[in-house]
Amino acid sequence: MAVIFEEKKIPYICTPLTGRNKEEIIGELEVILPEKPDLIEWRADFLENLADFSCVLSILEEIAKKSGLPLLFTIRSVHEGGQPITLTEEQKVQLLSDVCKSDAISLIDYEVSNNPEYIRELRRVSQLHGKQLILSYHNFNCTPKNEEIMKKLFLAEFYGADIAKAAVMPETKDDVLRLLQITNNVEESMDIPLITMSMGSLGVLSRIIGWTYGSFLTFGSGVEASAPGQVPIRKLKQLIAMTKEEMDAK
Amino acid sequence: MAVIFEEKKIPYICTPLTGRNKEEIIGELEVILPEKPDLIEWRADFLENLADFSCVLSILEEIAKKSGLPLLFTIRSVHEGGQPITLTEEQKVQLLSDVCKSDAISLIDYEVSNNPEYIRELRRVSQLHGKQLILSYHNFNCTPKNEEIMKKLFLAEFYGADIAKAAVMPETKDDVLRLLQITNNVEESMDIPLITMSMGSLGVLSRIIGWTYGSFLTFGSGVEASAPGQVPIRKLKQLIAMTKEEMDAK
Repeated sequence: MAVIFEEKKIPYICTPLTGRNKEEIIGELEVILPEKPDLIEWRADFLENLADFSCVLSILEEIAKKSGLPLLFTIRSVHEGGQPITLTEEQKVQLLSDVCKSDAISLIDYEVSNNPEYIRELRRVSQLHGKQLILSYHNFNCTPKNEEIMKKLFLAEFYGADIAKAAVMPETKDDVLRLLQITNNVEESMDIPLITMSMGSLGVLSRIIGWTYGSFLTFGSGVEASAPGQVPIRKLKQLIAMTKEEMDAK
Repeated sequence: MAVIFEEKKIPYICTPLTGRNKEEIIGELEVILPEKPDLIEWRADFLENLADFSCVLSILEEIAKKSGLPLLFTIRSVHEGGQPITLTEEQKVQLLSDVCKSDAISLIDYEVSNNPEYIRELRRVSQLHGKQLILSYHNFNCTPKNEEIMKKLFLAEFYGADIAKAAVMPETKDDVLRLLQITNNVEESMDIPLITMSMGSLGVLSRIIGWTYGSFLTFGSGVEASAPGQVPIRKLKQLIAMTKEEMDAK
């Protein structure tokens, strides 16, 4: 399924699946679907037996069939906030490549800090199979200085990503405003869509209003949050709709 | 009625009355009261016969009796976004002084850009009668550079105001973030509470989240908005409550 992102639907809402096995994942899906997210992200690093590629692919197909929604496939690295997995990086890239061949998915996510060879390989394979590539950056410790965040986003574009993502942790209230400012400024200089967020309790605001500053997608939690600060999808949608209504009304 | 502002109730919600005569004002009040604002601001510059001081005082008493809420009395200057009035500045100061003597009100507002003699006189009279003084600054054209806004807020404190207020118009999305940053920074250096907002459509966000950056009060409209960008009180309260809940939950 190809995803066509339109200006008018912004922000898109993506809800993560974090189940450890097929049963948990399908259970989550049943809770999430009535909330009508625009996309589903399967955070496959939460899966118990990620090494069983055919199992992964069968779960993928089940999610796609049940949801009918564009699916983002992610194996988040431990060093960027993911769960520990048993695969080597080579195996992980192989699994991501295999997944790209499946009609069940629309997008994959890979960290921009990874080995450039792997990034180029995944760009090639995803493109070959008509899948979008998100190149992402996560920092759970702080909100680095502006230039450092900008560089990660530009690097994603340089690698040919379809979407660039940056998720950072605020240490002060000012860090949240700074992330929004960076997004606002960088977005004008980039040719691909951006997803940015400030995490944790302080960052909640960025998940609600980030779209007005150029982040076209926001993550709303389903059964469990996959990153700190995610707002439950129902509430997130309400908050965004109400804010939008007010801004349009003026 | 003395107003005691407590940290835990932040942000306070103030709803303006903008009726042209007693009937309209009482009508507005009946619509507003079920929404339970924390304060009422009577924007007396909207009144048709402001020159009739005894009429003004009788309306004040009526509002106080009907609402049982702390009342802020404001005659906004034309050059800061108010309605044209027939009073001279001397007469206006006289009316504000008379109003300070009434038990019906808790606070008055006067622009910090006014003649220092008048400001000092109103500070003296309001203090004498146990009333709080808001010294305010409004700019409907732009969001001036940081130092200019800071200076107005500090100036309010220098004059001995109880509360300093700044309302500015954003020309870009970045201006809204800048106003929040200024509020966040200035608040730490001030000894009195602050009220700040970014007006208009772009500024709506500041009215909803400004409290997290140090603005202790926000204006939610009742029957009619008294300044561009005000969110209807019911919706404003909902948005703030939902945002607060999420921030507290993390």
